[in-house]
Amino acid sequence: MLSACVWFSALASTAAVPAEGVPASTNIPEAAYPCVNEKSQATFRLHAPSASDVKLDICGKKYDMTRNADGNWSVTTQPLVEGFHYYFMIVDGVPVTDPASETFYGCGRQASGIEIPESAEASAYYTFNKDLPHGQVRECRYYSDIEKAQRRCYVYTPAGYETDSSRRYPVLYLQHGMGEDERGWHQQGCMADILDGQIAAGKCEPMIVVMDYGNCGYIFGARKGETRDEFGASFTPIMLNELIPYIDSTFRTLTDRENRAMAGLSWGGHETFQTTLYNLDKFSHIGSFSGALFFLAGGLENAYNGIFKDSKAFNDKVHTLFLGMGSEEGFGSDKISKALNDAGIKHVYYTSPGTHHEWLTWRRCLNEFLPLIFKQN
Amino acid sequence: MLSACVWFSALASTAAVPAEGVPASTNIPEAAYPCVNEKSQATFRLHAPSASDVKLDICGKKYDMTRNADGNWSVTTQPLVEGFHYYFMIVDGVPVTDPASETFYGCGRQASGIEIPESAEASAYYTFNKDLPHGQVRECRYYSDIEKAQRRCYVYTPAGYETDSSRRYPVLYLQHGMGEDERGWHQQGCMADILDGQIAAGKCEPMIVVMDYGNCGYIFGARKGETRDEFGASFTPIMLNELIPYIDSTFRTLTDRENRAMAGLSWGGHETFQTTLYNLDKFSHIGSFSGALFFLAGGLENAYNGIFKDSKAFNDKVHTLFLGMGSEEGFGSDKISKALNDAGIKHVYYTSPGTHHEWLTWRRCLNEFLPLIFKQN
Repeated sequence: MLSACVWFSALASTAAVPAEGVPASTNIPEAAYPCVNEKSQATFRLHAPSASDVKLDICGKKYDMTRNADGNWSVTTQPLVEGFHYYFMIVDGVPVTDPASETFYGCGRQASGIEIPESAEASAYYTFNKDLPHGQVRECRYYSDIEKAQRRCYVYTPAGYETDSSRRYPVLYLQHGMGEDERGWHQQGCMADILDGQIAAGKCEPMIVVMDYGNCGYIFGARKGETRDEFGASFTPIMLNELIPYIDSTFRTLTDRENRAMAGLSWGGHETFQTTLYNLDKFSHIGSFSGALFFLAGGLENAYNGIFKDSKAFNDKVHTLFLGMGSEEGFGSDKISKALNDAGIKHVYYTSPGTHHEWLTWRRCLNEFLPLIFKQN
Repeated sequence: MLSACVWFSALASTAAVPAEGVPASTNIPEAAYPCVNEKSQATFRLHAPSASDVKLDICGKKYDMTRNADGNWSVTTQPLVEGFHYYFMIVDGVPVTDPASETFYGCGRQASGIEIPESAEASAYYTFNKDLPHGQVRECRYYSDIEKAQRRCYVYTPAGYETDSSRRYPVLYLQHGMGEDERGWHQQGCMADILDGQIAAGKCEPMIVVMDYGNCGYIFGARKGETRDEFGASFTPIMLNELIPYIDSTFRTLTDRENRAMAGLSWGGHETFQTTLYNLDKFSHIGSFSGALFFLAGGLENAYNGIFKDSKAFNDKVHTLFLGMGSEEGFGSDKISKALNDAGIKHVYYTSPGTHHEWLTWRRCLNEFLPLIFKQN
């Protein structure tokens, strides 16, 4: 009884080398398609002899795929922005994952993903480097009394954590975006490679990074009838009352506010502001990557209990306030930066050239953010 | 630019509670279907208004799904064997994953999976228990000079590993099956819960468990034209020359043969025999779960350079030889056990009642195997 799997079914044939480009790094082993050419065009293929219509949905555009005599549907895209993109195939109207792709939790479900490679030089900071010491990403489970359920977080420990058993480390809490989960920064964001590289080069302080589920990973249906204001809000009390104590009792952390940072992308940036700006006794470094986009609506001076009204007090207390966004997003982090400037609030504003609301923006944001934090150590 | 994702799209509606049963634990957050009733029947649903034909493929059987006026296709299965099953939906002839399911690497690709619950009592040994100390599963990356590439392994460290920084531990190398990868034992096999429970209860020795990729995780196309004899054979030299040295230099391990075990399921059982029986200077505990099924063909006395010919020497050297299988498999581990008995080779043979070639068989096998190994400590 072999379930849905078939043994030895394809062992007779060798995986074809595609003519259209190089197999994507995000493919499963031995899958020739999708592949990417030197113009950043990707060619996708799906064997679907009985389907009437197959489309590719990537980067906000739907491409019609063409069927050949063997029942293989294929399409080559326009040049795509470099970096990581979610995608789906649409088979007779149903969005499905590509069997040739690794899956990534995004879009409120498991999605296909493709990495469009940058140059070796540009991608070096988020690429595995065999010559560096490597940290570990640990999956940890803890019980939440608030949720009455098991929760899972991922914890990056730097290479030195294993070899120096007395050293304590500052902690960055790093949040994913809407429709994603605690796996996002590790799998789509390449955070371990970014940290490994910066720590080895002395660009950032050795630190622990904690990635938990922000309770905003679904778009299928609302939880308990949540409104937009409530969406993901259940995470903050869990983080403050359960996650931080769990981390501080399990790992060799530095536990004062000077040594605790929080950052997040998109909705995770919103959660970061919601969590840190009401709890500055616990955090002194804050980052929002393409996030916290709507709080200006009521006026800067009214936001977060008026925290921005006293710029001197704010600037004394918050050692890092970082805002980043992609140049192609058009979402409004630039407006927030302008309002903060007008109010005399010190911050760093970064724009990722040529990128949208997507993971290459956020890898770059993390890369810019890390050297700024925990400088006092 | 929001890629394939849509913000806020479904926040207005609350996820429905299904009438047919309880949402499966393997669903993504807020997904009501698939759900399971008290007779272990599962009900699946897919929104596919434009599809002409939708089937469910689970446990070796294809079910026709029925379309309702809203374009939702659904089916309720016959009672399913308890435990974890891979499944696919077949949309107009194309096997696809269910958007409502978490994905699991199996069948040579990312597959949907569903957990059919056992009773609380029966499933306790592989279920998260909030009252126990918990180990961690660490993702570690190392460079393989043999493959000229980065490799990934998962390493379970027991709860005490963090608190007693001088203790050294025995190591179990635990392999997945064909079409799976290094994630299988952790995600489908619940190995961390099994270890946490047994260690807390004093049923097995505290140990480190290493799960690497056996290079047999694809069925899409053969690698470099591999024959069946070569399939996955590239893993053994990597394990012996790169993985074991990496583990022994990174973790606090006991490095003698008395403290090193290897076990695997299905093709991983074959890899276990291929690796250990030619290298008994490095291993003294061996487990094969529904695996190593074909080696009797040439006669027991000729297998593995004749290792089974001298039963006394074998029994002195191999402290644990464990064979397990599901009662419904009909594959032949029982024949191997009989041949070993006839040859005077000491071993333990276990049959999992009512289960097929599937993960509940292997969870049970691991649960039986763990108390047998590292007893000399």
